[in-house]
Amino acid sequence: MPISSSPAAAGFKGTSATAATRLDHWLASRLQRTIAAAGVGVELWDGWCADGVKNRAGDLLIRDRGALLGLILNPDFEFGEMYSAGRLGIRGDFIRVLENLSRLSVEAPLSLRERLALLTVGTNGLFDARRNIHHHYDIGNDFYELWLDSNLVYTCAYYPNPAATLEEAQVAKLDLVCRKLALQPGDRVADVGCGWGALALHMARHYGAQVTAFNISREQIDYARARAVREGLADRVEFVEDDYRNVSGRFDVFASIGMLEHVGRRNFSELAAVVRRTLDRRTGRGLLHFIGRDRPRPLNGWTRRRIFPGAYVPTLGQVFAEVLEPACQNAVDVENLRLHYARTLRHWRERFERAEPKVRARFDDAFVRAWRLYLAGSECAFTTGWLQLFQVVFAPVDRQLHWTRSEVYGSPVSAG
Amino acid sequence: MPISSSPAAAGFKGTSATAATRLDHWLASRLQRTIAAAGVGVELWDGWCADGVKNRAGDLLIRDRGALLGLILNPDFEFGEMYSAGRLGIRGDFIRVLENLSRLSVEAPLSLRERLALLTVGTNGLFDARRNIHHHYDIGNDFYELWLDSNLVYTCAYYPNPAATLEEAQVAKLDLVCRKLALQPGDRVADVGCGWGALALHMARHYGAQVTAFNISREQIDYARARAVREGLADRVEFVEDDYRNVSGRFDVFASIGMLEHVGRRNFSELAAVVRRTLDRRTGRGLLHFIGRDRPRPLNGWTRRRIFPGAYVPTLGQVFAEVLEPACQNAVDVENLRLHYARTLRHWRERFERAEPKVRARFDDAFVRAWRLYLAGSECAFTTGWLQLFQVVFAPVDRQLHWTRSEVYGSPVSAG
Repeated sequence: MPISSSPAAAGFKGTSATAATRLDHWLASRLQRTIAAAGVGVELWDGWCADGVKNRAGDLLIRDRGALLGLILNPDFEFGEMYSAGRLGIRGDFIRVLENLSRLSVEAPLSLRERLALLTVGTNGLFDARRNIHHHYDIGNDFYELWLDSNLVYTCAYYPNPAATLEEAQVAKLDLVCRKLALQPGDRVADVGCGWGALALHMARHYGAQVTAFNISREQIDYARARAVREGLADRVEFVEDDYRNVSGRFDVFASIGMLEHVGRRNFSELAAVVRRTLDRRTGRGLLHFIGRDRPRPLNGWTRRRIFPGAYVPTLGQVFAEVLEPACQNAVDVENLRLHYARTLRHWRERFERAEPKVRARFDDAFVRAWRLYLAGSECAFTTGWLQLFQVVFAPVDRQLHWTRSEVYGSPVSAG
Repeated sequence: MPISSSPAAAGFKGTSATAATRLDHWLASRLQRTIAAAGVGVELWDGWCADGVKNRAGDLLIRDRGALLGLILNPDFEFGEMYSAGRLGIRGDFIRVLENLSRLSVEAPLSLRERLALLTVGTNGLFDARRNIHHHYDIGNDFYELWLDSNLVYTCAYYPNPAATLEEAQVAKLDLVCRKLALQPGDRVADVGCGWGALALHMARHYGAQVTAFNISREQIDYARARAVREGLADRVEFVEDDYRNVSGRFDVFASIGMLEHVGRRNFSELAAVVRRTLDRRTGRGLLHFIGRDRPRPLNGWTRRRIFPGAYVPTLGQVFAEVLEPACQNAVDVENLRLHYARTLRHWRERFERAEPKVRARFDDAFVRAWRLYLAGSECAFTTGWLQLFQVVFAPVDRQLHWTRSEVYGSPVSAG
């Protein structure tokens, strides 16, 4: 996009009242040195900018001294905070700037701040869980309707080919999950953390499954219930407003798409107990779809505080040792859909940008900027490998779901 | 098979000179109680047998008091030891007896003996590694030629359909590995723990790869070198008689099929260092194919001592946390081929039984019985879920090998 019309730069609030001092310039040149390798320049509120940036992807436009100090002292949190507040602008190729910056440190050792954060990730009791989920998911179904696909699927899509649309890719994902689980008519399914109900309804409609779907987001549950009634599936899908810890009954299938990130590592043993208690020993199998990591690391400080409070993104090793082993489950299949999530996020952001006028009718500038950064930053995190997207299929110890994967990659239900 | 002609019962040495006492009968009835649920009876050397076994799959024929005490005090080791020595016979359906017995305890808590064994698994220094590998793999290529496929592949095969032959399934496995790795002409491959060289030669012949293959079994390396020369592939495959720890150079592909089990858990960090040091950051990817577990547990005591000294079968969680994370590798794909290994082992055992006269020409009865039990017991371990077979594909953090799995499950090279 042309530099001047970059929406990322557009929200930038102009220059500060305070003149920059020599100390500001010296600090800015220190900052510049740490990010020069990313091809990202630094420009201060008085127009000062450093030399020596090659292959320039763009510039950080720093509006005041507070933003400058924040970026130096706690970039992990303040980058997002200052960008949302309009005290930091990004000029140039927004995505390339974020991508280059994230590549700089993807394999760096953990900072002291990150190590501390790993020790203090929230325990997410029942009350915290409700508050945390309310924070992100109860900001209005109509907001999500502006830029998600028509099924309101707010998790990584699966693009059978790179040219697939978001709409097609979300249906393909729902169907891939069903095929990986070898879903059969009459299967009793627990869909735990069911969002707006798209998977539960897909399972009931296309596979004849009997689904009990759990969610603690009131707005999502209300929406899903209404949809089930409207589509004549209310006899096959029950939506329950409750926490995963309270799941009871006996199921043939345990499916959890995009919830594990919100569980918090200290609750993994509770999740394991739920799987063990509710999954039928003879017929059971399950699928966990979650954002993961290559090595233990907390989420970015700003995301953790402003976007997903209480979230923890685990490694596969942690999920195996702390969820599946204590649940007495056997790992059947693991797929990494990292680049599919990068593409999903790109589609979401493009739709979000197109819907911006409607978003602004309901929310302020800081909200728009925070969501733009969250969507773009997440895309870059998946592109560069900061984040992974794992689908893990499991089953009790001696069950086999498919003889080979050819059975899964057969003739899927397609969109439309 | 008819009970009287069961080869498993055939080697049984008849009755003991010592008469059974009332204490022996009492001990035997205690033993009977622990295994009655498996449908397996107990018969002593004086013909005594217990009542109350339903759905009888077969009987343990115990020849002397030492064998009886061994089975009670340390079944994990003595079952194999006594069977090999001909002091324990199995009458009835050999496989069903072993399978039922292994189902009894697949989910049982670890015994004290097993816990201790987990603490004391060998460290496998360079010298131990050579001795351990020599123990199993240097007992004569012509022995393995009697019952393996014509390529001498001594790892789990991949059956594209359940009716495939062993020959077809081994070629399908070699090719599956190449496709999962997206192998390209000119790729520099390290094949670490290369057996008799089948994978290395397949990669060179069908994919134009340049392979360096490592193994510490002298007999296997000699065989593989001769084969490479005979087949005109010596310019594309180099066989090196050396340990994985000494792998040097820079590779596009790191493949290790059936070696991780011999590495020993305490050496995982060394293996990680090798991957990190030798795998190209830009072009690299790798595959580990290994026998694994659902939860940490030592190998059966007899297997650990008599069949695979120094072996340790890890969980996926351990492999991720202790090999791939420190190697800075990203998990791309995990497949569990448990039932494919059960089928492979069944084919091996059937061929072994057919070759028995030729085996007996070179080895004694104890050897034949030990191998029969090892092959049959391993089949049952995979059938019942004691053991798993994992293929893990990995790559440096931000590399993607395939857009979807459809690229892998395309048009494979077939056998013949």
